[in-house]
Amino acid sequence: MSEEKENIQFELTGALIEQVESLIEAKNDKALRLLLSEYHYADIAEILDELSLDDAMYVIKLLDSETTSDVLMELDEDNREKVLKNLSDKEIAEEVEELDTDDAADIIAELPEDRQQDVISQIEDEEHKAEIKELLAYDEDTAGGLMAKELVKVYETWTVAGCLRRIRGQAKEVTRVHSIYVVDKQEKLVGRLSLKDLIVAKSEQKIADIYISNVDFVYVDEDVEEVVKVMQKYDLEAIPVVGQDKTLLGRITIDDIVDVMKEEADKDYQLAAGITQDVDSDDNIIELTKARLPWLFLGLIGGVGAFMIMEGFQDAFKEYAVLFFFTPLIAAMAGNVGVQSSAIIVQGLANDDVKGSVNSRLLKEMLLATLNGTILAIFLFLFVWGYNGEINKALAISVSLVAVIIIAGLIGTFVPLFLDKRGIDPAIATGPFITTSNDILGILLYFWIAKMILGI
Amino acid sequence: MSEEKENIQFELTGALIEQVESLIEAKNDKALRLLLSEYHYADIAEILDELSLDDAMYVIKLLDSETTSDVLMELDEDNREKVLKNLSDKEIAEEVEELDTDDAADIIAELPEDRQQDVISQIEDEEHKAEIKELLAYDEDTAGGLMAKELVKVYETWTVAGCLRRIRGQAKEVTRVHSIYVVDKQEKLVGRLSLKDLIVAKSEQKIADIYISNVDFVYVDEDVEEVVKVMQKYDLEAIPVVGQDKTLLGRITIDDIVDVMKEEADKDYQLAAGITQDVDSDDNIIELTKARLPWLFLGLIGGVGAFMIMEGFQDAFKEYAVLFFFTPLIAAMAGNVGVQSSAIIVQGLANDDVKGSVNSRLLKEMLLATLNGTILAIFLFLFVWGYNGEINKALAISVSLVAVIIIAGLIGTFVPLFLDKRGIDPAIATGPFITTSNDILGILLYFWIAKMILGI
Repeated sequence: MSEEKENIQFELTGALIEQVESLIEAKNDKALRLLLSEYHYADIAEILDELSLDDAMYVIKLLDSETTSDVLMELDEDNREKVLKNLSDKEIAEEVEELDTDDAADIIAELPEDRQQDVISQIEDEEHKAEIKELLAYDEDTAGGLMAKELVKVYETWTVAGCLRRIRGQAKEVTRVHSIYVVDKQEKLVGRLSLKDLIVAKSEQKIADIYISNVDFVYVDEDVEEVVKVMQKYDLEAIPVVGQDKTLLGRITIDDIVDVMKEEADKDYQLAAGITQDVDSDDNIIELTKARLPWLFLGLIGGVGAFMIMEGFQDAFKEYAVLFFFTPLIAAMAGNVGVQSSAIIVQGLANDDVKGSVNSRLLKEMLLATLNGTILAIFLFLFVWGYNGEINKALAISVSLVAVIIIAGLIGTFVPLFLDKRGIDPAIATGPFITTSNDILGILLYFWIAKMILGI
Repeated sequence: MSEEKENIQFELTGALIEQVESLIEAKNDKALRLLLSEYHYADIAEILDELSLDDAMYVIKLLDSETTSDVLMELDEDNREKVLKNLSDKEIAEEVEELDTDDAADIIAELPEDRQQDVISQIEDEEHKAEIKELLAYDEDTAGGLMAKELVKVYETWTVAGCLRRIRGQAKEVTRVHSIYVVDKQEKLVGRLSLKDLIVAKSEQKIADIYISNVDFVYVDEDVEEVVKVMQKYDLEAIPVVGQDKTLLGRITIDDIVDVMKEEADKDYQLAAGITQDVDSDDNIIELTKARLPWLFLGLIGGVGAFMIMEGFQDAFKEYAVLFFFTPLIAAMAGNVGVQSSAIIVQGLANDDVKGSVNSRLLKEMLLATLNGTILAIFLFLFVWGYNGEINKALAISVSLVAVIIIAGLIGTFVPLFLDKRGIDPAIATGPFITTSNDILGILLYFWIAKMILGI
């Protein structure tokens, strides 16, 4: 994420919003329609996100449903919810008719459960209705939950000429033709073809003779994260989705994968920063509080723990007040080392490049932490010794620092590996969780080692 | 990032690596070629990443350059550097001939500067050579640095039939035909066509009559981040790149955008976790130390700062030791709040949804921090009061906490906004930077307010 610049194509200005608002107020439908026709639906959605609900509804009722269905998909989720609440079942069904099956199913899935059936029953196109129902049955975190039913399918027995003729029909309802999927008589996926292959081929050739049998595919119950990895690794722009018996069920396109990647990256970044729900900077204060307070509360409990540890060592260290002054340093180092090592493991797990055993990982982290810790401890030792001249205190503090850094590194490495083995998203292990537990443990360890070294 | 599962298509097993290694040792080229021919080049790259350099070189010299050039692009960057070092200029030039211009330019850009010219001069295809030279001249963070020269271009004066005939020629060297770009006589971009449009059209129609003039494009010097945003927002699979006079220069495809997104997300995640360079969990200890030590050192300096502040207040320590025991809590809360608010701003800036003035942002964060701070302070007050019975100390600590949280929130909001305005990547503001500065400032503020309240 870097500095913002002007958008190349479209800039959302206050003047544009005002222009739209005044056209709505004047009920100048013709001018409004003309103005908005210049913009992409994604831009219109950005405009609507800035309008009042009443004004947004006015625009939605004004524009044709082909445009508004696309606009609806691009609206901010909170705003979409409000707009859908203000549309009748019939009106939503009309929008849904215009959308590809994957988007249509997503819109319906966002509705309150009691409305879903009502909206579905208003869809007129029986095939579209059946396909949406099928998609709604899949778990949203699986390939089935992401795929669309729109695709171009040919039978291996067809000729190139027959194929082209039929594709002209099928392609009308498919926005973008990535690949043409080849199936056998049992509707099982056997290969693929590109449009390019088809126009390069001779028209009397059989599909069976020209298709590429080496086709990547995913099973319908495959985890979405896995689909993202496969499409990214093999640079795919679309991937067919099949049932357990290899029946062709649908396809997933790269634009949906891009959205999933963006969501995942945002979520992980927020988790690392101690934000629990998916919030935007424009959400209201209550929502932002709900997302932020839980981790802060954890930090509070950690701080109270640190207090109780320090209080426990209070009598032992009457003479050694200086030790207490280094607790924020110890806590910060324990926290930072823990976050660093957990972040590297979390990323490694996500990229499938954590190889070797848990033990070898821990050994490596121990070496790394010892190296980092020793370098840092030497600086700290020289500072404390030079600053207050007491070599035994300087030694106690520095040696403790090395120990704390090693333990913090080990915990930062072990916890995400452990969570991963137990099937829990290791990303929750970075950020406040590791910081807080390392704070407490670090301070405890620090006093304990200092006590030993100073012989108290 | 979530738990790892088996790859759908390919699993890199120890047994497979051993099989490859023993075939290399036995110099059984035929069996090795047969074995590897079953795998995708991205999978072969994963296998090579696990082999010794000698073994990897053996495989690279064995396979045909069409395969190895693709494998080379997918290798881990460190390994690719080693492999390139072991190839002659002529051999690299042969690999480069097989690659699309964007990948070819990337490979050459990775070479030491003194080798680049030597390799380029060995490229035989003059057109390919000129195109690669052109691409190397663009800044790698711009659209020009990301684009490829391979594209399918038609003139608006052509007919559909003539077009199809010529495309059959052009398309052979373009791996995937996303869009056909329409240019005028001056080579300026005027519109686009999909292959689908072309096969649906009548063969005697003129391109000028059927093309879509509403074509998204980016300028060649546009920032890569901006290209990512545009392609993501408009769900594009390819975008043409033009010069300032709209001359068509190249195109960027979505697979490159996916790679950029992944890199950016990884980099931001690492920055937030206090890791300064792009490292993998499999890098060696020296590289990992170089990436981790700088931020730890910053933490050390922050800790020393906290020590000096506390030492300044040490006269109060005799009677008010309890205040000192809460410094880790104060530092942790200041750090956590700062990281949360900076993360939300950094993400908001990246997604272009930070609207309104800096002042209104700061006001919102102040309200939010006051709300969070008050809730947390009430708990802390009740705990301290209940625990040691002294209401004035409990009050001093809790009131300070609210103040510290508000200031931490404001700093966390202000710093990334400030960096962004100055054209610096605000992502560096999250993580250790904010944590450390908030630690010190929080502790200072805490003692200062507590001192006032307690009248010390």
